[in-house]
Amino acid sequence: MAATKQVAEKLCELCSRGEHAKAMQDLYADDARHVEVMAMPGSPWPRVMEGKAALQKYSEEWSKMTTVHRSSIGKPIVNGNQFLVEMKMDATQNAGPMAGVRMDMSEQCLYTVKNGKIAEAKFFYSMG
Amino acid sequence: MAATKQVAEKLCELCSRGEHAKAMQDLYADDARHVEVMAMPGSPWPRVMEGKAALQKYSEEWSKMTTVHRSSIGKPIVNGNQFLVEMKMDATQNAGPMAGVRMDMSEQCLYTVKNGKIAEAKFFYSMG
Repeated sequence: MAATKQVAEKLCELCSRGEHAKAMQDLYADDARHVEVMAMPGSPWPRVMEGKAALQKYSEEWSKMTTVHRSSIGKPIVNGNQFLVEMKMDATQNAGPMAGVRMDMSEQCLYTVKNGKIAEAKFFYSMG
Repeated sequence: MAATKQVAEKLCELCSRGEHAKAMQDLYADDARHVEVMAMPGSPWPRVMEGKAALQKYSEEWSKMTTVHRSSIGKPIVNGNQFLVEMKMDATQNAGPMAGVRMDMSEQCLYTVKNGKIAEAKFFYSMG
């Protein structure tokens, strides 16, 4: 519980400063995975992505093709080895089928911590 | 995913009508469990409660000692075999160390569905 709270606070601190890459580098386990609600239509990325290296590559490419106008992160809520935090983002895709569309998104992110590292991030958002 | 969505919608429909007992009876697995953030100080109920029968007993006793002034349930968001939904409640405890204290609470509830039934409910709320 104490380790989970520490990871949660560190993640929020780094993300609120825009240091997403450092957050992933410092806090993710080598075999961490992301679980989206679904694979995005027209996207090469699958619903479940595994491995810190793959996630870092994804994150880097996502950053390149996205203009973030504004983003914010809520206050994490811890339960055992999991925590939940709301993320908001106002962004425009620069390429792909959604190019030029500005979207104001909000999602609840559920993180699972094992051995002091983030083992899984699962995203809950509604599709309009 | 389809079964999870169906269970989520049924739960929300019943809870929004105040039919919490029926929701538990119809939708919970026999070995369902509740995972709270922590055991409440002065409460006989543990952080993790297991078994539908135990949960029904808990729920019944909780109802007896609580006056609910108002409650609402949000729109469920599904990811795979889990869904997340916000519950709000304005209530006063009638007994125990918190007797007479009216609280306006909000929590995110994470449900896990297995074989078409709710196997776990995990509650995320912040303590003020």
